[in-house]
Amino acid sequence: MTERIYAKYWIETPFPVAMAAEVMAGEQSSGTFTRLANETDELRAAHGARVESIVELDDVADPSLPIRPLPADMRGSARFRRAEVVLSWPLANLGPSLPNLLATVAGNLFELREFSGLRLLDLTLPPAFADAYRGPQFGISGTRELVGVASGPLIGTIIKPSVGLSPAQTAGLVRELVEAGIDFIKDDELQANGPHNPLTERVDAVMRVINEHAERSGKKAMYAFNITGEIDEMRRHHDYVVAAGGSCVMATLNAVGLPGVAALRSHSEVPIHGHRAGWGLFSRSPHIGISYIAYQKLWRLAGVDHLHVNGLRNKFSEPDDSVIASARECQTPMFAAPKPGCTVMPVFSSAQSAEQAADTYAALGNTDLIYCCGGGIFAHPGGVAGGIASLRQAWEAAALGVPLDVHAERHPELAQAIRTFRK
Amino acid sequence: MTERIYAKYWIETPFPVAMAAEVMAGEQSSGTFTRLANETDELRAAHGARVESIVELDDVADPSLPIRPLPADMRGSARFRRAEVVLSWPLANLGPSLPNLLATVAGNLFELREFSGLRLLDLTLPPAFADAYRGPQFGISGTRELVGVASGPLIGTIIKPSVGLSPAQTAGLVRELVEAGIDFIKDDELQANGPHNPLTERVDAVMRVINEHAERSGKKAMYAFNITGEIDEMRRHHDYVVAAGGSCVMATLNAVGLPGVAALRSHSEVPIHGHRAGWGLFSRSPHIGISYIAYQKLWRLAGVDHLHVNGLRNKFSEPDDSVIASARECQTPMFAAPKPGCTVMPVFSSAQSAEQAADTYAALGNTDLIYCCGGGIFAHPGGVAGGIASLRQAWEAAALGVPLDVHAERHPELAQAIRTFRK
Repeated sequence: MTERIYAKYWIETPFPVAMAAEVMAGEQSSGTFTRLANETDELRAAHGARVESIVELDDVADPSLPIRPLPADMRGSARFRRAEVVLSWPLANLGPSLPNLLATVAGNLFELREFSGLRLLDLTLPPAFADAYRGPQFGISGTRELVGVASGPLIGTIIKPSVGLSPAQTAGLVRELVEAGIDFIKDDELQANGPHNPLTERVDAVMRVINEHAERSGKKAMYAFNITGEIDEMRRHHDYVVAAGGSCVMATLNAVGLPGVAALRSHSEVPIHGHRAGWGLFSRSPHIGISYIAYQKLWRLAGVDHLHVNGLRNKFSEPDDSVIASARECQTPMFAAPKPGCTVMPVFSSAQSAEQAADTYAALGNTDLIYCCGGGIFAHPGGVAGGIASLRQAWEAAALGVPLDVHAERHPELAQAIRTFRK
Repeated sequence: MTERIYAKYWIETPFPVAMAAEVMAGEQSSGTFTRLANETDELRAAHGARVESIVELDDVADPSLPIRPLPADMRGSARFRRAEVVLSWPLANLGPSLPNLLATVAGNLFELREFSGLRLLDLTLPPAFADAYRGPQFGISGTRELVGVASGPLIGTIIKPSVGLSPAQTAGLVRELVEAGIDFIKDDELQANGPHNPLTERVDAVMRVINEHAERSGKKAMYAFNITGEIDEMRRHHDYVVAAGGSCVMATLNAVGLPGVAALRSHSEVPIHGHRAGWGLFSRSPHIGISYIAYQKLWRLAGVDHLHVNGLRNKFSEPDDSVIASARECQTPMFAAPKPGCTVMPVFSSAQSAEQAADTYAALGNTDLIYCCGGGIFAHPGGVAGGIASLRQAWEAAALGVPLDVHAERHPELAQAIRTFRK
């Protein structure tokens, strides 16, 4: 087994960059704080992590993260050097195991005293991971098929208020939404299986509406029921959703963990909608964390079909170029010999309305996405039907290359959306 | 159900603190970026999160984390105000579910554009969580019983080099260690079930040595086999360990996730050793993350028996007072009516040797801990036996209140340790 795992990092260190990179490599493979007799040269050659490349960047006068006092001879004069470094590990150390990969490439590294900044930027994995994990079961094409939308974005929404509605009230909203022709609906990540709105009761109430409408109209909206919970509970709830005719389940990824998602994937008969709540903890600081580029590879291998990427001009702090880079990465195969359907559908969400459609299309270059609007639908002056119509009109304008305001002249719902949501 | 969940945060914001706290509360309960008709006052009263308290702290001129451009009227003059705020949620929103608790108290908050810093500091949970989760099965007293160490710390070690040894080489080290009277041995978190050292072969080789020694001497060392992996794989490996006479399994918590640990706990017949690799991502920045005080509560409820807390003068960047606060919290019950054995055994590890024993004892005030030394044992000039003897001598000195150097005058292994490891 000569295959290797590659990980790229951004680092900041007051020490020579090459030395600091060797500390990372040693700490995350065969080394410890002192050289041991049984760490032979042979063992190091076979199992040590290797520093593959170093690209030095800028340096700064002050450490970005708190750091222990420097050795006396460095105080005062130290510069904090930044670099991109690539490390590699033999697959033989851990095998194609996602949780153990995480412990290796994002384990005890972040705490190392040699660093005043450390971010995992990217991962390149050997094909053994693609063999060991199932990956997405439905992905973009399978999701399109289930919803019956061959082209254009899936127009979606989040049930709002996030929490507090009863199952019957939720179903009431769903009735309005499906009658207005929505493609996709999801629970908020705050609404899972609380006693105020238990999952099974919500499934009963919602699927009655969706199934009835599908029988009448031939169009069956996809509802992502949030089954985030314990392992057996998720399996049980998945079965409940499927038995009721549901076509999607949702899990909050950071809350459920990689083995939790893989366990759900091995059991699931419907797409898994992956919510990234808590993602800010990994992304918000430029000096510590994990990039979405690396992060989404882990969850895709574990088996999610949809992944949240935020949206343009969102209510959070993520810049637009980062949103688009994330979405594009979700649509890109991870391996040289990709399995069919291995890409996932990016989910645009957070303060989205008709306003961002054209820019999203222009930046991404395709419509293989779910476009989720909460307030952008529910707060539309024309109600849910007006909100959904305005979104279809906005994406139509984008596809035609017609400016939004021009298209709005003949599309009153779009005109209303612009008046309501433009800032 | 009128019980509430309380979470304390450190925040930094350019907006009035009370307003920013309301944004947090709204975003994580019934609000969205625009007020909706069906978010009634009644619904908000019943399901909205509440701002319970605000303590304003200092303010700074520059944002600690990157933030979107401020509104024109605030630019230039804004101060970034810091505060501790407590929010509360009705348990009815989510029920006593750890993954959904995480999505609520550490979900989409970190990204909010209103904040240039946000850390979760503490959690106070209603007793329903203690009823819903098993918590530690063995804890401090159960672990002591299994190892046969009624008082004093458990002297432990980590197999080093972390990776690269074969099962037979691992067992060879274990033989030296048990013959020298070690209490506890663990796999490194980098060594799980890689093809170079598969778990089952390691269990066979190691347990043969431990069982033989136990039969001869009556003392059975506890070996924490790292079974970090997929859910079914962890269950299978747990069974393999138990069938071979093993008395502990280890999981890398961040890699396995809360539902993964809870699934293991519901199945486990031996203590679960909780490794926190990756913890630096949550702790390293003063401006974003989760405190160990809050973090360890989640894993304890999920059911771990031992929790890593780093060690004094460690090889990482964590200060000593933080290490001691973490260890003390592990030893403190979480609920007003605690279950027996609900506390967990803190694991001191990372560049530990005889040198830190007295300070650890003085700071913590008890010996209910596992004291893990890798290099501190293997790099001792007297070999493994000398290393272990030096640690027992150091803790003896601590308990007697005798200065280390004085005790070393009559204890040559301790004297050697001081010469080797003192910096």
